[in-house]
Amino acid sequence: MNVLQNQQARLVLASASQVRATLLRSAGLSFDVVPSTVDEDIVKTTLRRDNQDTTASDIAVVLAQTKATDVSRREPQALVIGADQVLFCDGRFYDKPRDMDDARNHLLSLKGKTHTLHTAVACAQDEAVLWYQDAQVSLTMRDFSNDFLGRYIAQNGSDLLTSVGAYKLEGTGAHLFEHIEGDFFTVLGLPLVPLFAFLRQKGAIVT
Amino acid sequence: MNVLQNQQARLVLASASQVRATLLRSAGLSFDVVPSTVDEDIVKTTLRRDNQDTTASDIAVVLAQTKATDVSRREPQALVIGADQVLFCDGRFYDKPRDMDDARNHLLSLKGKTHTLHTAVACAQDEAVLWYQDAQVSLTMRDFSNDFLGRYIAQNGSDLLTSVGAYKLEGTGAHLFEHIEGDFFTVLGLPLVPLFAFLRQKGAIVT
Repeated sequence: MNVLQNQQARLVLASASQVRATLLRSAGLSFDVVPSTVDEDIVKTTLRRDNQDTTASDIAVVLAQTKATDVSRREPQALVIGADQVLFCDGRFYDKPRDMDDARNHLLSLKGKTHTLHTAVACAQDEAVLWYQDAQVSLTMRDFSNDFLGRYIAQNGSDLLTSVGAYKLEGTGAHLFEHIEGDFFTVLGLPLVPLFAFLRQKGAIVT
Repeated sequence: MNVLQNQQARLVLASASQVRATLLRSAGLSFDVVPSTVDEDIVKTTLRRDNQDTTASDIAVVLAQTKATDVSRREPQALVIGADQVLFCDGRFYDKPRDMDDARNHLLSLKGKTHTLHTAVACAQDEAVLWYQDAQVSLTMRDFSNDFLGRYIAQNGSDLLTSVGAYKLEGTGAHLFEHIEGDFFTVLGLPLVPLFAFLRQKGAIVT
């Protein structure tokens, strides 16, 4: 039952993220998942090379838009939702960890510091970006022990590789932090409140 | 596997809330659920009758403490976690809706307004409160249509009766709001970040 959605509107989520799909599904929406095939590393590298002043928000917005337009090319008429999340700490951008060693290094370098997560969401239709928004949240990681880190990595395994910060706040991530400031959905990677405002404006969900 | 927990520490959750149990379980903790048998209405009525200046935070804190100590009487030595959430809007306290009509009335009176959720968590052991904390978040409900409200109620049914605001942010609640400000876990009813800081201090989870 998805009585909150206009049945004429076809929604597509241009993301392979299970958390994003769960958020939308739990909010009662029906949609197809069609992950984008954009090479994110090329987009990021090009952005930073062409402009030294590129911010974390810029990268998140461009990637969310690029993923949404990429998928909208293959899904005519559908409203395609793209999203991206960039982690920034001490002048450095963090990508998703490549392997478990990388995940451990991410956590060690974020430990005891405050980082920002920049989350962008964009909607495209027939290759045009109709709307986008970016938001940020601030998270302070506590000064955990090496014993904790080993156990945390053992507990989570390769799940850590699916998140830019090597943590899942909806899981064991709460053990890592001493302070979290910001919106629920922005931390999880899909700011639903502004996205739903746009979808209502487009008549895709009930007002 | 719960390698993040000290196996000597027995944790008890003094709450029948599925959301709170899911949060703790997802964070990798093992615990027993033993709901308190305290009559919350009597506690609230007495508090308000005895002190006209009783705030929403006062009520949430006293209820979280009362539930934790109540259950700790039956669970010697266990660290017992109690929690409570009070909704306050326009000078009025809201309790969990009694029935579907009440849920509809709650949503109609919160519509288009900003309300606060006061969430308290307390830990007790052998009838003594060892620690407590309260936090608040602010949520602005959008001016939704009657059509939306009917569909929202149809979609959620009696699930609405399990939450003080007749919404679940982790479900379809995102459709209701235009702005949400505050911590993730505080909205869901169990502020894990300060709770885990206390549990680390007590040696119950790994530091």
